[in-house]
Amino acid sequence: MLNHGGYRGKSLAFLQKNSVRVGDVVKVMADSSYSGILMPRYEYSDDEHIVLKLKSGYNVGLEIDKIKKIETESSTNMKKENLPQAQIDPKLPRLLLISTGGTIASKIDYRTGGVTPALTAAELNAAVPELGKIANIDTEVLFSEYSENLLPEHWKKIAEKIDSCIRSEYKGIIVAHGTDTMQYTAAALSFTLAGITIPVALVGSQRSSDRPSSDAALNLISAAKFLIESNTSGIYVVMHNSTNDDEVACHWGTRVRKNHTSKRNAFQTIGGSPAYIVKNGTIEKNLQFNYVKREYTPRINFDTRVALVKYYPGLDPKIIDFIISSGYKAIIFEGTGLGHIGKIMYEYVDKAKKKGLFMGMTSQCIDGMVRMTVYESGRDLLNLGIIPLSNMIPETALVKAMWALGNSKNPEEMEKLMKENIALEFSD
Amino acid sequence: MLNHGGYRGKSLAFLQKNSVRVGDVVKVMADSSYSGILMPRYEYSDDEHIVLKLKSGYNVGLEIDKIKKIETESSTNMKKENLPQAQIDPKLPRLLLISTGGTIASKIDYRTGGVTPALTAAELNAAVPELGKIANIDTEVLFSEYSENLLPEHWKKIAEKIDSCIRSEYKGIIVAHGTDTMQYTAAALSFTLAGITIPVALVGSQRSSDRPSSDAALNLISAAKFLIESNTSGIYVVMHNSTNDDEVACHWGTRVRKNHTSKRNAFQTIGGSPAYIVKNGTIEKNLQFNYVKREYTPRINFDTRVALVKYYPGLDPKIIDFIISSGYKAIIFEGTGLGHIGKIMYEYVDKAKKKGLFMGMTSQCIDGMVRMTVYESGRDLLNLGIIPLSNMIPETALVKAMWALGNSKNPEEMEKLMKENIALEFSD
Repeated sequence: MLNHGGYRGKSLAFLQKNSVRVGDVVKVMADSSYSGILMPRYEYSDDEHIVLKLKSGYNVGLEIDKIKKIETESSTNMKKENLPQAQIDPKLPRLLLISTGGTIASKIDYRTGGVTPALTAAELNAAVPELGKIANIDTEVLFSEYSENLLPEHWKKIAEKIDSCIRSEYKGIIVAHGTDTMQYTAAALSFTLAGITIPVALVGSQRSSDRPSSDAALNLISAAKFLIESNTSGIYVVMHNSTNDDEVACHWGTRVRKNHTSKRNAFQTIGGSPAYIVKNGTIEKNLQFNYVKREYTPRINFDTRVALVKYYPGLDPKIIDFIISSGYKAIIFEGTGLGHIGKIMYEYVDKAKKKGLFMGMTSQCIDGMVRMTVYESGRDLLNLGIIPLSNMIPETALVKAMWALGNSKNPEEMEKLMKENIALEFSD
Repeated sequence: MLNHGGYRGKSLAFLQKNSVRVGDVVKVMADSSYSGILMPRYEYSDDEHIVLKLKSGYNVGLEIDKIKKIETESSTNMKKENLPQAQIDPKLPRLLLISTGGTIASKIDYRTGGVTPALTAAELNAAVPELGKIANIDTEVLFSEYSENLLPEHWKKIAEKIDSCIRSEYKGIIVAHGTDTMQYTAAALSFTLAGITIPVALVGSQRSSDRPSSDAALNLISAAKFLIESNTSGIYVVMHNSTNDDEVACHWGTRVRKNHTSKRNAFQTIGGSPAYIVKNGTIEKNLQFNYVKREYTPRINFDTRVALVKYYPGLDPKIIDFIISSGYKAIIFEGTGLGHIGKIMYEYVDKAKKKGLFMGMTSQCIDGMVRMTVYESGRDLLNLGIIPLSNMIPETALVKAMWALGNSKNPEEMEKLMKENIALEFSD
């Protein structure tokens, strides 16, 4: 498994026959010639292909039957002991880096030939040596998943890990995380760890570290600087602020959204500016939002019986019946405009209300306030018991509802939590 | 009904007793003093309140039991005959304005005291006299609904109406439309009327015409100029381009999204610039996209057995079972990042594929390309039969799938239509 990560059947036999292992740099002759690192395969994959990570950073799948020749150019079964050890400088502050997986962990992984992204301090030091001049960084691998595979149970584990560390001497914590669902995890940590006394930075990368345009190093370096020098606390997403390598933004964990599939500055603060900008090594604070600090009261539970319903013309209102009969306890609507859904839904919304479901309204416009008193339709929905969620972004509202449901004893308590501004999810 | 639009029971009795009618400007003494136009009520409303539209443009609901006094300041039961008639200037081109409802129709409605927004040429002329200098505009009320209540059957009626007019002498057509679902209707018309030989402008307003900050007049005037002077064809959304009253953008109907709940420049072209800008009365063309004109072949059908599934951590994959058993024929995913959904979904996606459902992938990032070959998860999903939809925005993909399903005889034909660039829904 370690040497042939994920390969099975025909492809495993092929690799064994040719003495090639995952992590090796190989040269393959097929329809044309390819050179790259042999990548691990997922369980779900077929056994007809092998995958190379090319020098361009992109992966290519090659059909075994079409491979004329495969040879190992260099075997990178480098032992961890071979890496230069990170030097401990007792004058520097300590940070903890928790790795959960994602692109940001992928270079260290595949360069060293390991299948699991075991991100040791030595490996991190080898990958981004500048970090050693900023802080002594301990590392811990919590799991190694692309973030599209993370679930609320992973949020819980990350929160528990962070909670267990805040009374240690760590000045701050970096969470290395895939970018796909980073905003959901950031919101989850913002609610569970509200009032946390140290800063936490979720850091990812939009381009893997072995590509020349990678944003991984600057994001990590900026996050370390931010955690040490900003003198703040709370949950932040720390990612490129422009397509150049000169500015990194620190976004509030509840107000951030991935708004582009591939740009390095894909993450944006919705309805305002990032909380901090790290520019040429200095930290600029943005005072736009008046964030009231609260006492640290970790509440680390989630209940996933919450449905997100995006309204659109033609939506079958019977989806609400399915939601009720499946035992859901709450619905977050992504309504249109100021917070509307078609009147075709009213009868079903009424049913859900009578069954005691919490219903909150956000807008699929994403930016701007939900205002349900402006039009008759909004007022009708208020009368039907839908709670307007101001300018909470839909994904944050969904996560908050899972958290509020998981940490309240009854519907009234949940509604109260949903209306309370816990972590700047309301910023008006 | 005409005089007491929507009021019933207690509130109707109250209005009758006080001889107040919908459309009257009234003064109400309650907890404080209010002056405004008595608004109609929806069927669904209770009978305990009346609603006034205040001078600020906002509506207020007042509880009848708390009203000490109500009196009519002016009865605006103005007859249509009392409005100055629009002058026909035989030298000007002709346009058709089709009204479907929404905020843009609300002033004319409530100012004249009528309950239904009957937008006659005379009323339009009275509301925006500048239009008479640009074109002779015929008007037709197709329906009068807030756009959150419009359904695919309404899209069909609008498309049929436009199709019936394109061989007339109209130089272009304005569709007055609520902004909530304007982008869905714009996409629907773009597909049904692909290759249309005249330009069509969907026009709405973010602030009602009786508010000083209303965008209605400039949007209408700019749309009329655009239709007459641009020498183009196709379906466009014509709305403010900035928060000032100086620029109006004409967006491609498939590439536009409402990205703010209340700003006048809420509509934006995703992944590029608007097709045209109307600035100080001149039309500027943007050549960014290479739009290939096609023959006009109206295909005016929709089949709503299409589900939009936005993926998020904690989504119950059993939703796919519900979709299959409810008889849906297609799923549009709003995946994460480059086009992913968690591996928890794979088994269910496989089931849907085996049942013959079309499955297309878009990204909840909204901007940027779906690229499912970069990561193993994307390749797994490709293997499971999900079709990547490039940079088609999710709402457009949903509408296109309803249209493609409604106009194809079998799944193969539908998939072919989904992959074909019909109306710039792929812009890469």
